[in-house]
Amino acid sequence: MASGRLRLGYTAAMPKTPSLRIARVRVDGRTSTAIVRSRQAFLVKGGPLGSLTETGEAYPLSQVTLLPPVQPGKVVAIGLNYYTHIGERATPQKPEAFLKAPNSIIGPGGTILLPADAGRVDEEGEIVAVISRRARNLSEDQVDDYVLGYTCGNDVSAREWQAGDLQWWRAKSSDTFTAVGPWIATGLDPEHIDISVKLNGTEVQRASTAELIYSIRRCIAFITSAMTLEPGDLIYTGTPGATSQLHPGDRVEVSVGGVGVLSNRVAADG
Amino acid sequence: MASGRLRLGYTAAMPKTPSLRIARVRVDGRTSTAIVRSRQAFLVKGGPLGSLTETGEAYPLSQVTLLPPVQPGKVVAIGLNYYTHIGERATPQKPEAFLKAPNSIIGPGGTILLPADAGRVDEEGEIVAVISRRARNLSEDQVDDYVLGYTCGNDVSAREWQAGDLQWWRAKSSDTFTAVGPWIATGLDPEHIDISVKLNGTEVQRASTAELIYSIRRCIAFITSAMTLEPGDLIYTGTPGATSQLHPGDRVEVSVGGVGVLSNRVAADG
Repeated sequence: MASGRLRLGYTAAMPKTPSLRIARVRVDGRTSTAIVRSRQAFLVKGGPLGSLTETGEAYPLSQVTLLPPVQPGKVVAIGLNYYTHIGERATPQKPEAFLKAPNSIIGPGGTILLPADAGRVDEEGEIVAVISRRARNLSEDQVDDYVLGYTCGNDVSAREWQAGDLQWWRAKSSDTFTAVGPWIATGLDPEHIDISVKLNGTEVQRASTAELIYSIRRCIAFITSAMTLEPGDLIYTGTPGATSQLHPGDRVEVSVGGVGVLSNRVAADG
Repeated sequence: MASGRLRLGYTAAMPKTPSLRIARVRVDGRTSTAIVRSRQAFLVKGGPLGSLTETGEAYPLSQVTLLPPVQPGKVVAIGLNYYTHIGERATPQKPEAFLKAPNSIIGPGGTILLPADAGRVDEEGEIVAVISRRARNLSEDQVDDYVLGYTCGNDVSAREWQAGDLQWWRAKSSDTFTAVGPWIATGLDPEHIDISVKLNGTEVQRASTAELIYSIRRCIAFITSAMTLEPGDLIYTGTPGATSQLHPGDRVEVSVGGVGVLSNRVAADG
């Protein structure tokens, strides 16, 4: 770990730095970007996408509220991206994307609300890429230079709406249906990231990005063939295996190797 | 027309005011909200969703660049909402919504870019509602109090992607596929707004909101049953009749009664 280099300063865009954990926190009535290490939040100037110069202020994690690590203008998600998830369905001939509404985002500790009229709602644990700079028409080997890092996500999904509506607008974007956090980890190898999900302490999903049908680099390059990605945009990369129905009182924990754990409670809406 | 009241000041949220035309303009290197009347832009303080206090500065429209009238966090569109458009398809049992990416927005005078690999791309002229304040679980009779006004929109659609992809993410949200403007008109009756579309000067679409399968109030109330609408969010309310293929060099003009004309050129991308 090049800690000497860290002390000299670093930027989020710098490739191949040692892994940093970049969070957005609320502390003492202020919102700030922070670097997390040794169970403390070291506040930095500016946003998570800029230069990460520490202010010298640090707080124990127990004294801060972790917020969604970015406030994206756009959330693009990939469907049907693990063989273990698609079951009997045909293998997609290309990455199959969809949009999620940014104002459906909740952070670590946020509560997933089950709409009264939605029927079955499932968790979908996912590895999430955070875009660092404007990207259009990328090749796969360019993608790493446009990804700030990775975090944990839960692409909460209302199955009856997903099956019965023309498009997935509310099935995937009802309020609170896009959980993300607890922070962004830099320096991960996108070909080898592990994910697992626990529901009330019992493991219900487990996979590695090595098992993806379309790699993270391929998905992001493909998205940029049709639309510009902007700094802070989130890419949900697909969920593995079988998902489970959520009930009020449940706790869902999405763990991503090298990142940490995103934990959310579930409650009935209204 | 209570012009005396207008001179005393007014706010966007004030219901039943005489019709105002609220624009966002670029002039002399600055971006400002403006009230448009008598072919002039009267600059106002703050954003289009706030109090609209004129600064005293006015410019002929010919000297300003009209921008998209808002910068929404979310664009929700309704599909299959005119009998003349759905053709042989079954009548939807509820409003069928989908999301469009806000960074696909272009304003009046912006150029619609045809992706090289998209195949057929059509115009979809639409009446667009602009949300004025945070809205959740509205009843139909509450909706008018949450709509700032209406503008013209073009929900540009790549038909092969729309038919061949799992979801409409790129079919409806490729860069430049969400045209909006030229300004927001307040005080319109959502049950009786006319729309027509010209392609290279020839009328290709015409309808009235009286012909909608699901009224604007019904659509907005329905959307808020699943998700919170935020100030500035745009609601595209559906396109009537048959749409036409766009080609480089075309000009598309969407006219909404009581608003004006949104005019955009078409070009090949790249």
